[in-house]
Amino acid sequence: MASLLRLPSLLSPSKPLLRRRLPAARLAAPAASRGQASAAAGAAAPAAAETRGGDREGQVTPRSVDFNAWYTDVIAAAELADYGPVRGTMVIRPYGYAIWEAIQDYLNVKFKETGHSNMYFPQFIPYSFIEKEASHVEGFSPELALVTIGGGKELEEKLVVRPTSETIVNHMFTKWIQSYRDLPLMINQWANVTRWEMRTKPFIRTLEFLWQEGHTAHATLEEAEKEAMQMIDVYTKFAYEHAAIPVIPGRKSRVETFAGANRTYTIEAMMGDKKALQAGTSHNLGQNFSRAFGTQFMDENGQIEHVWQTSWAISTRFVGGIIMTHGDDAGLMLPPRIAPIQVIIVPIWKKGDEKAAVLEAVDSVQKILKEAGIRVKVDDSELRTPGWKFNHYEMKGIPVRIEIGPRDVTNKSVVVSRRDVPGKQGKEFGVSMDPSILVNHIKGRLEDIQESLLQKAITFRDSNIVDVSSYGELKEAIAEGKWARGPWSASDADELKVKEETSATIRCYPFEQPEGTKKCFMTGNPAEEVAIFAKSY
Amino acid sequence: MASLLRLPSLLSPSKPLLRRRLPAARLAAPAASRGQASAAAGAAAPAAAETRGGDREGQVTPRSVDFNAWYTDVIAAAELADYGPVRGTMVIRPYGYAIWEAIQDYLNVKFKETGHSNMYFPQFIPYSFIEKEASHVEGFSPELALVTIGGGKELEEKLVVRPTSETIVNHMFTKWIQSYRDLPLMINQWANVTRWEMRTKPFIRTLEFLWQEGHTAHATLEEAEKEAMQMIDVYTKFAYEHAAIPVIPGRKSRVETFAGANRTYTIEAMMGDKKALQAGTSHNLGQNFSRAFGTQFMDENGQIEHVWQTSWAISTRFVGGIIMTHGDDAGLMLPPRIAPIQVIIVPIWKKGDEKAAVLEAVDSVQKILKEAGIRVKVDDSELRTPGWKFNHYEMKGIPVRIEIGPRDVTNKSVVVSRRDVPGKQGKEFGVSMDPSILVNHIKGRLEDIQESLLQKAITFRDSNIVDVSSYGELKEAIAEGKWARGPWSASDADELKVKEETSATIRCYPFEQPEGTKKCFMTGNPAEEVAIFAKSY
Repeated sequence: MASLLRLPSLLSPSKPLLRRRLPAARLAAPAASRGQASAAAGAAAPAAAETRGGDREGQVTPRSVDFNAWYTDVIAAAELADYGPVRGTMVIRPYGYAIWEAIQDYLNVKFKETGHSNMYFPQFIPYSFIEKEASHVEGFSPELALVTIGGGKELEEKLVVRPTSETIVNHMFTKWIQSYRDLPLMINQWANVTRWEMRTKPFIRTLEFLWQEGHTAHATLEEAEKEAMQMIDVYTKFAYEHAAIPVIPGRKSRVETFAGANRTYTIEAMMGDKKALQAGTSHNLGQNFSRAFGTQFMDENGQIEHVWQTSWAISTRFVGGIIMTHGDDAGLMLPPRIAPIQVIIVPIWKKGDEKAAVLEAVDSVQKILKEAGIRVKVDDSELRTPGWKFNHYEMKGIPVRIEIGPRDVTNKSVVVSRRDVPGKQGKEFGVSMDPSILVNHIKGRLEDIQESLLQKAITFRDSNIVDVSSYGELKEAIAEGKWARGPWSASDADELKVKEETSATIRCYPFEQPEGTKKCFMTGNPAEEVAIFAKSY
Repeated sequence: MASLLRLPSLLSPSKPLLRRRLPAARLAAPAASRGQASAAAGAAAPAAAETRGGDREGQVTPRSVDFNAWYTDVIAAAELADYGPVRGTMVIRPYGYAIWEAIQDYLNVKFKETGHSNMYFPQFIPYSFIEKEASHVEGFSPELALVTIGGGKELEEKLVVRPTSETIVNHMFTKWIQSYRDLPLMINQWANVTRWEMRTKPFIRTLEFLWQEGHTAHATLEEAEKEAMQMIDVYTKFAYEHAAIPVIPGRKSRVETFAGANRTYTIEAMMGDKKALQAGTSHNLGQNFSRAFGTQFMDENGQIEHVWQTSWAISTRFVGGIIMTHGDDAGLMLPPRIAPIQVIIVPIWKKGDEKAAVLEAVDSVQKILKEAGIRVKVDDSELRTPGWKFNHYEMKGIPVRIEIGPRDVTNKSVVVSRRDVPGKQGKEFGVSMDPSILVNHIKGRLEDIQESLLQKAITFRDSNIVDVSSYGELKEAIAEGKWARGPWSASDADELKVKEETSATIRCYPFEQPEGTKKCFMTGNPAEEVAIFAKSY
């Protein structure tokens, strides 16, 4: 292997490449599986595997030792992504992309159900467009990638590679919208966007990322507000019910509002290191872009008005949120509803004459589960031992493992292991292969895991939010790495001071608010709302 | 309306914007529907529509008068796409995008069935990558868009906005592939690509377009060849069975082979003006990119070898192919299998007291069809007359229209019209609303239309291919706008001479070949194969 010619990376990334543990791990010495491998599994490597010598998945840095190293290790070991050749870019590998596809599949249906159509806008935007909306240009101009040469010639006007599409959307909306009959206009696009970020992190903040961006135009402010709220609700529901991430939905402070929006709604998620992740946003844009681009309509009374708009987005960042919410030292842990593979079946046999019967049973179980709509995969490779496979699919976060060995075949039963409950506790022996029993059992386990991941995340979240009534208390909570929640009505300057002194920002004014007027913990003035402060990604 | 403030386009496109007929048409005077509107439809505009005054869809230039004008008119009137603000870019509107989604839905399943996984590569490629494969850089360098500024700073190395991804794919494959166990590596991505084209045309050739690009690496030449052939077969099957386009699959000549490939397979479609459209390609890349990027593996005997590769793509250009294969003077005509809406239901009533019963029947018919898996839409808007709707949905190419008026309600029947058969001939009265009859009837009609569109296209294609046995005959055929098919074993220089003198190129050596050795129509030398020459898009 050492003689393989390897071309060096041509642009050195600002960070080291993901530690390439997997190839090494493939050749590493055997070792026991994490968790409690069944007696059969412990002993029974198929003959061919012996010749490979490999039995151990590349280990990852323990979460408690170094959360960031753990995160990038998991991404490498579970083969979710890799660094691209250009600094800050990311290649999304098939398994990571399959998680993104699961997110897309759910949201795409919801977007259509709520009346939106997909379409596609060009990614090249004339530079002058970006300058039209004052706060938009201020927010985005430091992050732009510019095309200046096309077809061998210097361009007359520089082109912006879209960092977001409000400007070009409004340019087109202005052409398409004439009358109130053309409203509401509700569209979405799945696209790549580019932001020249200085500090990058796979999935969380990359030079280029994938997202969906919804854009809508309405006849009234009320309709736009309702739409912005509806979409943050869609995101919230997705996060809770599918990703098992108990996000806190709320409104951004003025300081943190999207460049060009009147109001930004957000869902904020607590990662395993207690830092906050802004996991999705929905903006009420008011008439900011319609005024900048002259997007007008004739209302029912013949009056010309500017349209009221929204935009909203969720990106591949959400995949990072899933990793950092549920993962543990054994690797990724996927909520069943978004897991590309929900059940992995590992056949186990000692002697050659056992093989046929085991594989026949495996095949039958796979068919039964597949027909029941469960996403199931069999790994009957003879190049790997069962122990290696156990670790490998734990690393990949597959919710349920089924082992089938010769004794199981005799008993017409299988062994079922939960990814979220390590060791013996998560293991059930003698689960009947009878379709009516097996299917219900597995479906039940998948539901249990889904619910259990959510509850665990809720408990973690709630035990790390501190209610504060003074700036001192906030400082203490933030210093402990926790979120601080307290009444707030102070100035933007005070908010920036908190950021400077503690690195925490207002994540949101949560929708869920205690009743009554409180006292701002900073100024002592009356405060209508509590805000949540936290360090964030 | 004239008082609406409109911002001028900030970059003038090199071509005029699509003729904006629709907004004008909305306010145009009533006119008779194309085709034979039912008696009820002719008379019965809902009351509200009278106040709109509008009844006529924007007409398009007749196909026979100016095919190119017809094409862009249909794109505008059927709301498939619009020009973007940057020269040569295109906005794909919801209806056009829905056709692309239908293409994606079919191919995505086929790609996965044939063992490919989706993933995503960054779109920014270091300029030096493009230079690594000699013929690749020669082919693509004139068409590149280059990012030279990022985050406000001049970049040390210019970045190419991907025109195709072979180079970056190989850079990553080199990291991931070590051993024969890592092969075959078979991936696909759905992405946007950029080629700085000088002469652009919506869908057919745009600065930025959407496509899928498959990339695979194999241990042997034979496997790569088999894969390249498999994928051109997938495309061929899709074209015939779903898009009803009788493409001719074959091999490209050396001159027309992809920059960097050893062999290019293609599917060539005859458009309504008889010009050829290259509708999809599959390349056997040999070891060209693996040598340039050092993509090697250790084979079963411990030898280090370069991998053998393929790549293959279909793009939004295919949407243009669908328009230009099936459309007529009334607009778009969509094959039922890829039509976003297969059946449009238009309710018709004269008097207010008829409305409730008609809408109830419409609702019930819609439910019946939807439950049967038919993509159905109801247009019960009172802002438009039935006649307007007939034209509108003919323009949109919806395969089947169902009309339901008061008399139909009484008779428990509906009127069914085929988009592909104009006038009375395509119209059936008294089709029973009984679910068991109606569903079978509509499904049968959709199948008839699918088959009929294909047969019509085959007949058109075959009547416009001329077998030639001399250069003179070729010139004659090409001058008539037809395709010329003849034995060919002449040089690349002769091929370029044909292009120069007739504007025709070798579209392919079709897979289907007459038996025996023939005489090259250019040189008189023995020729193993016939080639097809045609003018192309």
